[in-house]
Amino acid sequence: MSVLRSLRGRDFLTLLDLTPLEFKALLRRSWEHKYGVVPKDLLKGKYVAGIFEKPSTRTRVSISVATFDLGGVFLELPISNLQIARGESIRDTAEVLSRFVHAIAARVKQQSTLEELAKWASIPVINLLSDKFHPLQALADIFTIQEFFGDKKVKVVFLGDGSANTNHSLMIASALMGYDYSVGAPKDYWPSSDVVKRVEEIMKKTGGTLSILEDPVEAVKGADVIYTDTWKSMGVEDVERRMKVFPPYQVNMEIVKKASPRVKVMHCQPWYIGEEITEDVAYSEYSIAFEQAENRLHTAKAVLEALLS
Amino acid sequence: MSVLRSLRGRDFLTLLDLTPLEFKALLRRSWEHKYGVVPKDLLKGKYVAGIFEKPSTRTRVSISVATFDLGGVFLELPISNLQIARGESIRDTAEVLSRFVHAIAARVKQQSTLEELAKWASIPVINLLSDKFHPLQALADIFTIQEFFGDKKVKVVFLGDGSANTNHSLMIASALMGYDYSVGAPKDYWPSSDVVKRVEEIMKKTGGTLSILEDPVEAVKGADVIYTDTWKSMGVEDVERRMKVFPPYQVNMEIVKKASPRVKVMHCQPWYIGEEITEDVAYSEYSIAFEQAENRLHTAKAVLEALLS
Amino acid sequence: MSVLRSLRGRDFLTLLDLTPLEFKALLRRSWEHKYGVVPKDLLKGKYVAGIFEKPSTRTRVSISVATFDLGGVFLELPISNLQIARGESIRDTAEVLSRFVHAIAARVKQQSTLEELAKWASIPVINLLSDKFHPLQALADIFTIQEFFGDKKVKVVFLGDGSANTNHSLMIASALMGYDYSVGAPKDYWPSSDVVKRVEEIMKKTGGTLSILEDPVEAVKGADVIYTDTWKSMGVEDVERRMKVFPPYQVNMEIVKKASPRVKVMHCQPWYIGEEITEDVAYSEYSIAFEQAENRLHTAKAVLEALLS
Repeated sequence: MSVLRSLRGRDFLTLLDLTPLEFKALLRRSWEHKYGVVPKDLLKGKYVAGIFEKPSTRTRVSISVATFDLGGVFLELPISNLQIARGESIRDTAEVLSRFVHAIAARVKQQSTLEELAKWASIPVINLLSDKFHPLQALADIFTIQEFFGDKKVKVVFLGDGSANTNHSLMIASALMGYDYSVGAPKDYWPSSDVVKRVEEIMKKTGGTLSILEDPVEAVKGADVIYTDTWKSMGVEDVERRMKVFPPYQVNMEIVKKASPRVKVMHCQPWYIGEEITEDVAYSEYSIAFEQAENRLHTAKAVLEALLS
Repeated sequence: MSVLRSLRGRDFLTLLDLTPLEFKALLRRSWEHKYGVVPKDLLKGKYVAGIFEKPSTRTRVSISVATFDLGGVFLELPISNLQIARGESIRDTAEVLSRFVHAIAARVKQQSTLEELAKWASIPVINLLSDKFHPLQALADIFTIQEFFGDKKVKVVFLGDGSANTNHSLMIASALMGYDYSVGAPKDYWPSSDVVKRVEEIMKKTGGTLSILEDPVEAVKGADVIYTDTWKSMGVEDVERRMKVFPPYQVNMEIVKKASPRVKVMHCQPWYIGEEITEDVAYSEYSIAFEQAENRLHTAKAVLEALLS
Repeated sequence: MSVLRSLRGRDFLTLLDLTPLEFKALLRRSWEHKYGVVPKDLLKGKYVAGIFEKPSTRTRVSISVATFDLGGVFLELPISNLQIARGESIRDTAEVLSRFVHAIAARVKQQSTLEELAKWASIPVINLLSDKFHPLQALADIFTIQEFFGDKKVKVVFLGDGSANTNHSLMIASALMGYDYSVGAPKDYWPSSDVVKRVEEIMKKTGGTLSILEDPVEAVKGADVIYTDTWKSMGVEDVERRMKVFPPYQVNMEIVKKASPRVKVMHCQPWYIGEEITEDVAYSEYSIAFEQAENRLHTAKAVLEALLS
């Protein structure tokens, strides 16, 4: 618990803020939340305000159940019902909520909204997805990889929209783990260069490797995990163009067969069957997407506990 | 409790899935929830996800309070906030929610949505109203009838839109009880023939009788209970036509006087005063609509307990 | 507690319904909720239904957290999800909710909606803001004034829209306290004459004084507290005209300097920086708006306890 204690009171906006030790401590604690016996009152008397600018199923339900299951209360605040809808500033919202609750969890269009919330809130702010990062997702992803591959070093390959929040966070998480990571993506959709730079810095210490490629077939060579996400994430505008350039990166049986024979396919869902993933893969033995979804719950508990209790 | 145990883990989509014994066991257990002493932690650590495609007052509040009052947590998930709004399939939603919560309660436009949810969910799915059935309503209705008439065999008469979900479920419930049931409705709005067939099969065993008539006056002869519902249920499209054919089936003082002298008038609400029911009847001593509404709470508890605890 | 007991089961629609003793008992009990040790299960097994016709941040979160923190459950019922949206009457909604929950808290466009709810509900109805009154706000306001000024008699000056709900309730609260109260407002936006009449009656007993002036500079002479609110409250229609007549009543450093040297500036928020208040005042040492916001929580607890436990 000593490493986790360093997270107390801190924000959870991006995995870039975590050391490899802190990240691994969260993974270990998630394990205890899933398989062990953990006190049920860790968040007793604690309130988490959830602000949602976008639809959400897995994130919404997992963070809600995680909060209640630890004895706290999750208050869902649809943004259209808040005074933000009438123009109240993020600053005032953050300062006011800090007087009433113990954490703000927000799913937002812009990472900058989270940063503004965190700047003014005196309580932890938790990223429930932004345009740039999805750290709770990546924590659950690595947890799931460990369930299937144990502690060994794996090769994770992300195919499709390399500029997506999911890929950014998974790259960072893989760097923190010392994994080998490949992105197969059209050049215009490669990951943000500032994230790449930070990932490479982390990998220097952890021993991971990063390769960003245009050729999906080359990318998946030796892949233990193939990961993909929708080509039309919430908020993107160039959908038509995307539908033209992404098809070679579809996760179908043909590409799966080119990876390691024990490859697992992951997807943060919702998926668009027939676009970034085919039905025969999505619901196949290769796919561990529903296990991955379930692990959102156990890993969210570890984060809530670390920040708040 | 032994009969109720057979409901554990099952769906609650239509009363057609229940035996008379199971239905009566739910009624008895509802009685204990209303008048007896029942442990407050039957749903401790249990989560019910509520999905609402339509407005709801009685159903929403009764199922929420029932869940919390038994120690569980009700998570309301307005459908517009879920990824279903962005096209996620019912299948994936059902599989994912099954990983996080212990039951899905849904108020939907189509019964087929419930069936699809139930097909893929590994947890119980509870019908909070569909185009075809409203089983929680009918359970509360029979419970209320028993409060006023005891265990005796009664005659229940439904006037108005015989094709409505409320009538379908009340017909089935009355069949399970062995009641005499009459529908007074315009021929184009008679109950669905597949439901009628099943009701007649059940009545063969329970000793109930069914008559479907065009003449409202003939229908209410000897009625212990006159039941009606709005002529323009959520989702119906032929409102203008309905407003022309339904007026003879209005529940007004004149028709009430033609029933049994101790007749009770029921309505699942919301009612449209001056349409299917007149004000002098709705708020009269004849009306037990608010008692009926209250019983939604106690009967919902019995169902939640039976399926989940 | 004996004075508070007189509030049990009553509505909380306007402070005009309270005696000075009752109001002060609520203040004292709020103090205990904030600084003392209060049992955590005062509302155990109690449900509060929250109906919101308008956006809300402070009110929504404070009443929710207050309810849960006392062991109860707050059920938020957005009005668009209720059958009210399909035309169900306030009467039926009130009667039905009375069967399921223990209080109705409502934020409404019209005070008359609250009165209609209260007429038919058999449970307490709590005003969470209407066009005319905002009693929970004024209770928190006086509580905050006492935190800064103790028990002494202060002069409270409201500048701007004297016809606003906030001013009405603060006038009444100040009358109950025996404060000196000034309104500085354009003549067309002076407080409602029926409220003024009642305030003057109360002040005769409590020793307070009321002055309503057009000149903001004269109004703030000797002010211990300067209070303002948005010039364009939710629901007002003559925004353009307001923007023309209100600027002389802006709370800026110039006017603050004309008050008592220890003056505090209050605002119920959300504020429109550069309109009714300038940034240098809003975020200055003079401003106690965030303390005021926090006190919404502690005072809401006192009210809930008094009405319900």
